[in-house]
Amino acid sequence: MPETVAEIGEFGMIRRINELVVREGAEAPGVTLGIGDDTASFLPRRGFELLVTCDSVVEGRHYLPGRITYTDLGRRAMALNISDIGAMGGRPLYSLISLGLRGDLRVSDVEALYKGFLQELNPFRASIIGGNITQAGNGIFIDITLIGEVEEGRKVCRSTAGAGDAILVTGYPGQSAAGLRLLLAEGPAGGIPDHPLVRAFNTPGHRAREGRAVALTGAASAMIDTSDGFLGDLGHICEESRVGAELILERLPLSEALIEAAGRLGHDPCDFFLHDSDDYELIITCDPRHVEKIRSAVSSVGGVPVTEVGRITPQERGTTLLLPDGSSRSLSALGWDHFLRRGE
Amino acid sequence: MPETVAEIGEFGMIRRINELVVREGAEAPGVTLGIGDDTASFLPRRGFELLVTCDSVVEGRHYLPGRITYTDLGRRAMALNISDIGAMGGRPLYSLISLGLRGDLRVSDVEALYKGFLQELNPFRASIIGGNITQAGNGIFIDITLIGEVEEGRKVCRSTAGAGDAILVTGYPGQSAAGLRLLLAEGPAGGIPDHPLVRAFNTPGHRAREGRAVALTGAASAMIDTSDGFLGDLGHICEESRVGAELILERLPLSEALIEAAGRLGHDPCDFFLHDSDDYELIITCDPRHVEKIRSAVSSVGGVPVTEVGRITPQERGTTLLLPDGSSRSLSALGWDHFLRRGE
Repeated sequence: MPETVAEIGEFGMIRRINELVVREGAEAPGVTLGIGDDTASFLPRRGFELLVTCDSVVEGRHYLPGRITYTDLGRRAMALNISDIGAMGGRPLYSLISLGLRGDLRVSDVEALYKGFLQELNPFRASIIGGNITQAGNGIFIDITLIGEVEEGRKVCRSTAGAGDAILVTGYPGQSAAGLRLLLAEGPAGGIPDHPLVRAFNTPGHRAREGRAVALTGAASAMIDTSDGFLGDLGHICEESRVGAELILERLPLSEALIEAAGRLGHDPCDFFLHDSDDYELIITCDPRHVEKIRSAVSSVGGVPVTEVGRITPQERGTTLLLPDGSSRSLSALGWDHFLRRGE
Repeated sequence: MPETVAEIGEFGMIRRINELVVREGAEAPGVTLGIGDDTASFLPRRGFELLVTCDSVVEGRHYLPGRITYTDLGRRAMALNISDIGAMGGRPLYSLISLGLRGDLRVSDVEALYKGFLQELNPFRASIIGGNITQAGNGIFIDITLIGEVEEGRKVCRSTAGAGDAILVTGYPGQSAAGLRLLLAEGPAGGIPDHPLVRAFNTPGHRAREGRAVALTGAASAMIDTSDGFLGDLGHICEESRVGAELILERLPLSEALIEAAGRLGHDPCDFFLHDSDDYELIITCDPRHVEKIRSAVSSVGGVPVTEVGRITPQERGTTLLLPDGSSRSLSALGWDHFLRRGE
């Protein structure tokens, strides 16, 4: 019979996690105390600001139990935090993991979850330095705090876009949302279909290296990762920067896989692109003269395309979509909101 | 009708929280970016190590819905994190709050929760710089990450106690556990009895200022806060320091209120003291010559008593309790374990 969390207890589970982290995890620079005391501790580097983010993944809400492996779940939960650090131009360093578990969960599943965390952290030489385990009533929750660093004066916020700036986006947003629909269309007995869009939902990538390269150019005026859907996140930039935006429909980068799946699902692929998709791509704004500088910074890291999809406008113009016939449609900047009763 | 979280949505709730934090919260030094971007950021001070801890409070598990006010719940959740920073000798600075909520929760209840957080943070000029809100399936969870600082070389760990050291404890552990029993004895219709032990459970204090004063003396060999029961936490010191401990039963500081309540509940007050009580007092070990130095450091902060309850021994002696008749009893260092099926 597989060993359960209840059988080895909280402290037994912490010991097993600690052993795994020591055995398979990277050693981040500056750590002076890791897992196992009242707090962890580290010595920050001079000349760097510290970045801190936290994000939760909740069973039934952000993932479908049985429709993702525990390792992929760990990767997904960590990738979205890494994405936040990267979207500021930073490098991830230290992570704390707070888990709400059920006692009947298998120890090997919790270990698989941690292997997923480490798969995402190790390439950055970032490490798990602390955390907490507690018994959760019904659903599992994973809450990750990630601390990173960025050179003083180099971080890129969402509040600093200016009218006239170009709007760029990396990769092909919308794939994660379409992947979720494909997963749901299969029904509970369908397991985990081997489809690139399902992978885009279950184990999204992140553009943390690209974000950091962009920040170091000093050429971006604002940056954000797409976790609330393209329009939701562009809306955050517009609200915080007090600007509007004009998008050009024909320029939206729609992947072949998305167009094909949207057709099969009877959806407009643009809807997947614009709404409710957590692809962890980057939206970057910059002076139009710096577009090539941004593009080459991103391509210095890997093969991710950068597409110019529109312009930042004065706030009173709102957010609009320019259609191929030259007409324009107003868009509400509504992305993913966990609580709102949506009137769609 | 009272406004609910579902009605104003995730972003509406974040806006309301942000307004509250700006209006009623302290401004911690060094913050370069607060709530509202992909991450928060701050500039660390030179000559200080950073301390990081996280801890969760889960509905039905760590508190009884309807048996604690939301403000007290916020105070409790924050106090236990402040306690961890203090038990290392640090000062709390920056907090991130991750909430799992139900849509039908009242906005005013979430605001009351935050008022509780701020009541605990403001006296330290510590602030809330970020967080996350998500919809949780059934139970509410509150996960707090707290970052603090301590002068380089001054932090006090749990792994550095030595045989022969005196074992000190602040205050009167056991009161929180007895308070929980009193609350349970009232039954669900009993509301929140106005009793000092119930207050000790619902809104425990912390000894963060005392812990910091102790650390700055340089005289403590190890320190920990009591969150897993006195024996559980002394057990952590013993395990990490590879030592044993001898406690003297007659010296255990039992409050009058605890003795009275234990009598009423038909329990031995020592059981409340030793097991499963989260009082957030401090266990401190030190060279016996430094006991008075520690005592005066603690009393420089306030009126909390410090009691010497025993000695650290070589590891092979285990943990023992010296009884008034001169005999000694072996103790298993079992404290509060969330998952273990207890064979008691």
